[in-house]
This record gives sequence, C-alpha cells and structure tokens, in this order.
Amino acid sequence: MINDLPKGFKAGAAAASFRKPGRDDLGLIVSERNCVLAGMFTKNLFKAAPVQICQEILTQYGMARAVLANAGQANACTGEEGLANCRETQRMAAELTGLQPHEILPLSTGVIGPQLKMDLWRSALPALAASLGSRDAEGFTRAFMTTDAFPKFAMHEVGLAGGTVRLTVMAKGAGMICPNMATMLCVALTDAEVERTAWQDMFARGVEKTFNRVSVDGDTSTNDTILGLANGASGVKAAGHADLALLEEALTHILGNVAYMLVKDGEGARKVIHITVTGAATEADARTVARSVGHSQLVKTAIYGGDANWGRIITAVGYSGVQVDPAGVSLKLCGIERFRQGQPVNDHMEDELTEALKADNVPVEICLGDGMGSYTFQASDLGHEYVSLNADYRS
Amino acid sequence: MINDLPKGFKAGAAAASFRKPGRDDLGLIVSERNCVLAGMFTKNLFKAAPVQICQEILTQYGMARAVLANAGQANACTGEEGLANCRETQRMAAELTGLQPHEILPLSTGVIGPQLKMDLWRSALPALAASLGSRDAEGFTRAFMTTDAFPKFAMHEVGLAGGTVRLTVMAKGAGMICPNMATMLCVALTDAEVERTAWQDMFARGVEKTFNRVSVDGDTSTNDTILGLANGASGVKAAGHADLALLEEALTHILGNVAYMLVKDGEGARKVIHITVTGAATEADARTVARSVGHSQLVKTAIYGGDANWGRIITAVGYSGVQVDPAGVSLKLCGIERFRQGQPVNDHMEDELTEALKADNVPVEICLGDGMGSYTFQASDLGHEYVSLNADYRS
Repeated sequence: MINDLPKGFKAGAAAASFRKPGRDDLGLIVSERNCVLAGMFTKNLFKAAPVQICQEILTQYGMARAVLANAGQANACTGEEGLANCRETQRMAAELTGLQPHEILPLSTGVIGPQLKMDLWRSALPALAASLGSRDAEGFTRAFMTTDAFPKFAMHEVGLAGGTVRLTVMAKGAGMICPNMATMLCVALTDAEVERTAWQDMFARGVEKTFNRVSVDGDTSTNDTILGLANGASGVKAAGHADLALLEEALTHILGNVAYMLVKDGEGARKVIHITVTGAATEADARTVARSVGHSQLVKTAIYGGDANWGRIITAVGYSGVQVDPAGVSLKLCGIERFRQGQPVNDHMEDELTEALKADNVPVEICLGDGMGSYTFQASDLGHEYVSLNADYRS
Repeated sequence: MINDLPKGFKAGAAAASFRKPGRDDLGLIVSERNCVLAGMFTKNLFKAAPVQICQEILTQYGMARAVLANAGQANACTGEEGLANCRETQRMAAELTGLQPHEILPLSTGVIGPQLKMDLWRSALPALAASLGSRDAEGFTRAFMTTDAFPKFAMHEVGLAGGTVRLTVMAKGAGMICPNMATMLCVALTDAEVERTAWQDMFARGVEKTFNRVSVDGDTSTNDTILGLANGASGVKAAGHADLALLEEALTHILGNVAYMLVKDGEGARKVIHITVTGAATEADARTVARSVGHSQLVKTAIYGGDANWGRIITAVGYSGVQVDPAGVSLKLCGIERFRQGQPVNDHMEDELTEALKADNVPVEICLGDGMGSYTFQASDLGHEYVSLNADYRS
C-alpha cells in the first residue's frame, strides 16, 4: 500500500486553526519503539526555534520517538519567547502521549516572525493525541502543508538479506525552497534496524544528491529540516555492506521522488527545469553554473512562457563566476543543440523546439568543455501564480 | 535645457525595423572633435560582439568620435559572424560620416543569439547619417529602448574654474539588469576637456557608486556597456583638484539619477527597494547582505504586494553567506523597527507599516551589529508585469 507508514509508526492530525479554520494544521507521528535519529538542517543563520531544538536532540540524544509538526507559524525570528513556546509544546505533547519532551521532534512552517498561538495549541493537542493511528502518510503530510498544491510523500519496500523493510518520506513545499544541506520540512521513516552512524551517513549522502539539488526560488528558509527515524520494528537488520547499499539506494530514490515533487509544485510552477552541467573543471564549478542557471529569473520566466530564448541560459553561465572559455561552451535545450563551442547553431529547428518546450519537464544540457566535473539540478519555472501566491502570502 | 546634449555633439536616429516597424531603433551620436574615452564593460564571460569591439577601441586608441546604438538585436552569442557583422556596421557608418571605423563605438541590445539583419542595416544607415542633428538626448535614448517604459537620461551643468561644462547621461534598461562593473547600455557625454586617466578614474568610481548598486532581476547581461565621451568643446579644462572633484561629483550625481530610473522601470516594477546595510564587519560583507536581500524573489514579491512580511528580509540576511551573530541583527522597514538584536518587535505598528508600504520607494535598513562596514543597494520589486514581459519576450 503506497500510502502506508512503516511498521511501528502511528500518525494523527488535528485542526488547530493556526492559519485557516477547518483544515488539519497539526500532525503527530509516534513510534512504538525508540528510533535511531538522523537529521540535516538549514544553513540559514536565523534558525527557527524548532530547528534549534531538533539539533539539540540529535546532538544530545541521537534518538527520538515522535515528530510534532505544525503549519501556519514558522516560529522563526521569535527569539527567547519562541524557544520557550516550542519547549512548552513538547512538554504538553509529552504529557498527553506518555513520552519525554526530548523524545518529541518539533517541526514548524508558516509565517516568520509571529509567536506561536499557545492557546490554540493547548486546545488542539488533546484531539491530536487522541487521533493517533487515524492518519496515513498522506494524512500526516496534509497537516503541515502551507501553499502546497498537493501532498508530497512516497513509499518504498526494500528486500534485505533478513527480510523486507519499508521506507516512507513525507515533505512539504512549496516556497522559500533552495535547500542548502536540507530542505523545508521532511520526515523519513523506516522500520529497518540500522546503526546510527550508518543511518546518518546514508541520509547525508541521499540529501546531497536530492534535496540539495532542487530550487523553487533560491530562498533558503529559516526552517529547513529533514529528519530520519529508524525504529527497527520490522525486526530486519540492515548491517552488512550489501544491505546498507540497498537501503541507501532505496532511501535516495524516494528522497529524489519527493524532492522532484517540491519543484513540481513550486508555488504555481508549471514546469520543472532539469539542468545538467558536464565538462566542468570540477564538480564545484558544475554546481555553481547549474545553480546560476536554475536561479535566473529570466531563464525561469522564459521556460514558463515556452519561449526558446536560449541566450538567457548562456548569459547565466557567463555570470556564474566560474571561469570558462566561451569558445568551449555548448548547449542543448530539450535535446536540440542551440550553441556549439561558442557559436550559435543556425538551423530550422525553432518550431520543433517550441513544441518540445510545451512539455512539463524541460531538459537543459550545458557542456563547458573544460574537464570532467558534472552536476544536475532541478528548478521550477517562474510565473504569475508564484507572484500571486507570494505578493500577499500572509493574508 | 534639460533635454540637451553638451556642446559639439550631434545625435540622429532612424527606424530600421529590427524589432518592430515604425519606431526608431538605430541611433547615432557624433562629436565634432575627437573625444577622450572612458568605458566599463560587463563581467559576463560571453561578451557581445559590440562589447568586444568597444573594449578594443578603448585599449588600442582611448579616443573615439561616435556612438552607434541599436535595439532589437544584442549581437551576443553570435560567434565570428557576429564580430564580422559588427565591424561591417562600423565600416558602413564610417563611410557615411567621413570617420574612421575605429572611431565609432557600437552598442547593441535586444535578443541574444540571432545574427544582425545586415540588409536592414544597409537600408537604414543612410537615413541615420542624414538625421544627424535632428535628435536631442531623449531622441537618441528612445532609439535604443527595448522593454523600457520611459527613456532614461539626465543632464547637469557644472561650474568649473574656467567656465561651465555640461554632462548628459543616456541609458536603457529595463531587464537583465544586475550590473557588475557596468550596466546595460549607457552613454555619458561631456564637453569638458579632461585628461584620459582622470576621466576613466572618476568614471569607474562613479559607476561603482551608482550602476553597480542596482538590480532588477539579478541577471548580468552579455552587453553591459557604459561609455564616457569627453570632447572638450566647451573650451573649459577640468584639470585642478577642485575642478576634477566638481566634475566627478556632478557625474556621479547624474549617473545615480539614471541608475535609479533603471530600477524604477524594472520591467513592470512598481516600487524601488532602497536597501541600506550598516554595522557589517567589512564593506564587502555589507554588499553581500544587501545584494542577497535585493535579489530575493520572496522579498521582491512581498514588497510588490505591499505585504509587511519582514521575516523574508531576515531570511535573506541569514542565507547570504556572511557570518553574523543573529543576536546582533536589527531591521527597520519603512523606518519602522521590526526586529531588534535578534528579537521580533511586537507592537501595534502593523497598520502604519501597511500604509507606508504603499509608497513607490521602500526603505529597508539592516544593521548587523558587527562593525563599521556599510553599503547601499537599489532593487526593483517583482510582479505580474515582469512575468508577462519576460515569459514571451521574443514575440
């Protein structure tokens, strides 16, 4: 069942009216057993209160039992009061679930600045605790959606030497997305039994290959958090080299699926731009060029409009800061070569290209002709819906 | 007369149908005397053919007599054929004006990629040469507008020891604007007599304080060029320290006026965001933070919508890459404090702030509490008009 949680995890949700009444905006996941914890967090200096507390739990305990997620309020830029409020939500949830406060990982998303509405928390938490077991992966994911057009989750089963284990990844988008060592909010669960360092390491590598390579708007949020909880409830141990490789492959695969959904739902995005840079002197150079193209407002609006204005892509390569010889640079848009070794390709492919640009996924291939470094990156286009959503987000 | 050229310069224009028929898209300025030349050019690696040729003239001759500007075609990413075409336009214009080809500075703006339509050039150049003297500063500026909503030019008179000299600056915007050591196309004329090194130096400093501190969309173009021509036709020499300081002050002042116009007309921009960063460890840090805020899509859309979502500004400070202590950071939006030393300011100023955000100019003051470095930067907001203009620019 695609919409299921791994063994030993239960989810619940409640409507606390944090943003709008009548929809779930508070979610809870509890594991029946202690979980080995992995986590990656935003590099933004202004880390939201829940980010600071998750980091504390990861460092001090490395284990957890539950995730408490809310939409509508980010609890970021809220100072000491914000931290105290976050701890109070842990305390209240612990009391209702019989856990310790430090076993509960807080996640918040929404408007930056306002303090948590503690009265609404107090009213909603008993219903939340009572709802445990009533929600599936989709139900939990919906509880921390904000501007998301659809819930983002994926599940995968992996056959290890000792039996089958399950992985579920649940995330929210859709704006302020330019993950840097993590993304907005994402929870990955597995019932595999896995040693802590191995779990954190495969997690870090998986995030680097997936969430760290997508962008909606280039804004790295104050709340980016990705948590991995492995509770071992399957009774299947992922220990040997082969098992760990299989688990990592499956984890990376579904993290990739969910990261793609973030870009796909990039606040009104119509298209996903798949940027591949090859022939760079180093991978770091390839990354810089790919991100420069993926963040260009002019590239993003042209793709939105289906306009084959490839000169804007070359322009973004040229101002990326990476030193390349223009005479070595080539470009394919939708598989059609437009620029070869620094010269424009003049042919009669314009109509085919215009047709190809109508697709939902637009490949951009850039070869720098300078070495063996390569990088891939996914970016949203930029259209009217993005402006409408963000010009008046708070109302 | 505000709309005048300095002494000894004549302007003309013609309609060559490069983009749309029936409007001037080709402009020419000729000086009756040889001009001392200053220039700054895009840092984009893919320098358009006319940029390469202007750089050549500046380096090899340091003098020029004329500027030949066109809209509709950027002659960028056009390879060897593009360079040859550009030289041919110089040659044809030289023949018609009695100048040498290397005395004519080419400037192009428009779509990147296509080759110049040489047949249209051949047809239009005689009319262009014949029109010399028929246009004023506005008339020349209109000849190289693309998506500009209004022509951008300014004039200033300066009283030096030996008499009065005139300065005129003419520029085009409005998209692909994030000048880096220069801006899109800009021509500054003066009839002062000034020594070459002094002219280039005051030019470079003036551009650094003005054009290099504005952004519409963060995209540094392939064609950015700013030229300064001083023909000495006033008979007034700017030589002593006091005269040079006066001339530099006047030049910087009108470059600043025109740079502001670029942001103001930022492809559908409604508002100009004036970002001031103080208290940085260094000026470079202040610059990085100011640019991070000015390039944030989320900040720009919020200002467009008049939404006092100040958390987005703090977020952009936090991901700028500059290491600051969050507990030292303060923010004023429209003069109203929203964040003080890392804590949110909770008061009842929300209504006043919403009212203040309706103004055309929105001040954002950020203090990092970390030193004496400061920087100012102007950025456009981001709205529906930008998307509409850029989603289908070529049609």
